[in-house]
Amino acid sequence: MSGERCPRVVTCTAPVNIAVIKYWGKRNEELILPINSSLSVTLHQDQLKATTSAAVSRDFKEDRIWLNGREENINQPRLQACLREIRRLARKRRSGLEEESAPSFLSYRVHICSENNFPTAAGLASSAAGYACLVYTLAVLYGVESELSEIARRGSGSACRSMYGGFVQWLMGERDDGKDSLAQQIAPESHWPELRVLVLVVSAERKPVGSTAGMQTSVETSPLLKHRAEAVVPDRMKEMCRAIRQRDFERFGQLTMKDSNQFHATCLDTFPPIFYLNDISRRIIHVVHRFNAHYGQTKVAYTFDAGPNAVIFCLEQTVDEFVSVLRRCFPPESNGELFLKGLPVGPVTLSEELKMAMDMEPRPGGIQYIIITKPGPAPQLVEDPSLHLLGKDGMPKQCS
Amino acid sequence: MSGERCPRVVTCTAPVNIAVIKYWGKRNEELILPINSSLSVTLHQDQLKATTSAAVSRDFKEDRIWLNGREENINQPRLQACLREIRRLARKRRSGLEEESAPSFLSYRVHICSENNFPTAAGLASSAAGYACLVYTLAVLYGVESELSEIARRGSGSACRSMYGGFVQWLMGERDDGKDSLAQQIAPESHWPELRVLVLVVSAERKPVGSTAGMQTSVETSPLLKHRAEAVVPDRMKEMCRAIRQRDFERFGQLTMKDSNQFHATCLDTFPPIFYLNDISRRIIHVVHRFNAHYGQTKVAYTFDAGPNAVIFCLEQTVDEFVSVLRRCFPPESNGELFLKGLPVGPVTLSEELKMAMDMEPRPGGIQYIIITKPGPAPQLVEDPSLHLLGKDGMPKQCS
Repeated sequence: MSGERCPRVVTCTAPVNIAVIKYWGKRNEELILPINSSLSVTLHQDQLKATTSAAVSRDFKEDRIWLNGREENINQPRLQACLREIRRLARKRRSGLEEESAPSFLSYRVHICSENNFPTAAGLASSAAGYACLVYTLAVLYGVESELSEIARRGSGSACRSMYGGFVQWLMGERDDGKDSLAQQIAPESHWPELRVLVLVVSAERKPVGSTAGMQTSVETSPLLKHRAEAVVPDRMKEMCRAIRQRDFERFGQLTMKDSNQFHATCLDTFPPIFYLNDISRRIIHVVHRFNAHYGQTKVAYTFDAGPNAVIFCLEQTVDEFVSVLRRCFPPESNGELFLKGLPVGPVTLSEELKMAMDMEPRPGGIQYIIITKPGPAPQLVEDPSLHLLGKDGMPKQCS
Repeated sequence: MSGERCPRVVTCTAPVNIAVIKYWGKRNEELILPINSSLSVTLHQDQLKATTSAAVSRDFKEDRIWLNGREENINQPRLQACLREIRRLARKRRSGLEEESAPSFLSYRVHICSENNFPTAAGLASSAAGYACLVYTLAVLYGVESELSEIARRGSGSACRSMYGGFVQWLMGERDDGKDSLAQQIAPESHWPELRVLVLVVSAERKPVGSTAGMQTSVETSPLLKHRAEAVVPDRMKEMCRAIRQRDFERFGQLTMKDSNQFHATCLDTFPPIFYLNDISRRIIHVVHRFNAHYGQTKVAYTFDAGPNAVIFCLEQTVDEFVSVLRRCFPPESNGELFLKGLPVGPVTLSEELKMAMDMEPRPGGIQYIIITKPGPAPQLVEDPSLHLLGKDGMPKQCS
């Protein structure tokens, strides 16, 4: 291998995850140790994914990285933390082997190229998928197999949860060195096959406060955040695990909404206050509560991260009807055909009772588009070499 | 007196108050006992007031009440609680006197007529001024002089704070019967003569959730509200008292904003969540923080009650400039002349640096109008009989 002139290339994909018990606030900025545990659903990579190719070659002069078609500074501390940790594990593993099969391999420079199949502007947690993909790809490249969520966490806290499929908890841990701050699957995606996820991409006027800066200010200034982390989240983690294990949508949905609201409440309790929800977000919340009130049960549930986009959970049987309700409340402006992406949605006729219950002034264009997806698996190795993002020269094949 | 055919009429006015440490949540619904103490600034009655006339006559067949020109049901429990308590105190006082000067006076029926000089739609706490005025007027009519804030509290919790001028705290009390849940002046309005108050009336799309229903849901569902009441407010009450006593605008303003934000955070933590701030409210918050950041000090502070309207505190020297900034960010639509009401505002030329610092897309019509006022005195007796709202026949003189 060390004699080849072509670089060795590995390509993997990794998923986005959506927290239903939110992570907000670090107790250690450098190691990215959170002030509370969190829990998420891994989304299917058929709809949303990051793809990363990593290559090593004796010909490479330096470590380099391209993100979404643009070369970025590889010396960024979080990138360096991931690279350093993977190489350290690789060295450790190597030194444990009898024969040194590739003595110089570890000293080669690496080229990394990564892209998302969704616009960063969609406000989805692209850094989680991105760092999960980076760490998984490097781990395959270097043959490392140990606890990778700890390394992904060093890139972006929530990235550790994207290392597993299905339903994943990130246990905050207690140790100062972060060795016990790890992600853990609580159920695979096959556990709840009826669960569906709608990503509602909302038009935003302003760029919101970034989550790294935002959560730091919250930790420093919000008295409510501290209470949430210490006194509210521990019970909610247990309750959410139970709701998922029992596939109890009523409890899952209620708790998901309550925890999203509480996260945004702590943002508002931050000083100066941070607002991620806009008038369209609030309208979506209103639509969800009206829809559920009409049925007298929790059929749909919302959650919002650090931006105005909504993520809606519901069961398969509710998708067609709720999408139809959304179309009524937020008529697509021009892009009628591009309004729905992902899993197919069937036509449905809304009952007059439901239409009356949902009667509100429509907001054309309030939702740009909807991605319909479902829980999905962990990061994957891409076998087909034609899908590598790096060419035989070790450079990006194309700019996306 | 009992021989006259003309009714005896008393007319009083009472002020609006704006809480800087917010009241939200009752521990006893009937007695209106709060879960935390609160603190407010009484606004001047030159700009905002309730006026009430109350009359007794042997000719009246029944108790009656007119509010803002419309007869209302006097059997409403909170009205009845106020009437009953005042009559009880009057009876007690009478029985302590040697001579029964007006033996049948207390058995006469009462007519009450009340109006506000500001639109209820302005979303100001009209019930606080209204109940304070009712209780004060009845107290004068019946010659009652004891602790009236306790009775006003039975009408509307925050009404107890409108019984005093200047800076007023409502001590939550500990007793089950509410005898120690009283308002208390901490400083008269003359204590801080430079303080100014701007009421920014914002266009609202929907009628918000009423505060009585809202706070009940919050008490039942928000884990953060409980923590706020028990662990956050007690220290804030002390700090706010100190800031006011020392006329320390920096601390007063910061704490006012933080407490407003925390109140709205607990509304968001309520389930289903309650939203009182809209996109214009959030934009006003943004303008205030930018303005303060430009000066590197807290020159203006916002607070929001159960609606989208902002109340701004600042010192006299800041009024002209900040109003000018508001005009730039929220250009008045058609009512240029009606945009400013109350105390006079002088013209000012904004510096280029300030204009740059405040650079944001203008929102025409976002603010309907601004009322400029200042802290003011307690309820007042109106001596001029031509200002009575009830005529010699005991009926409302006019519908407003």
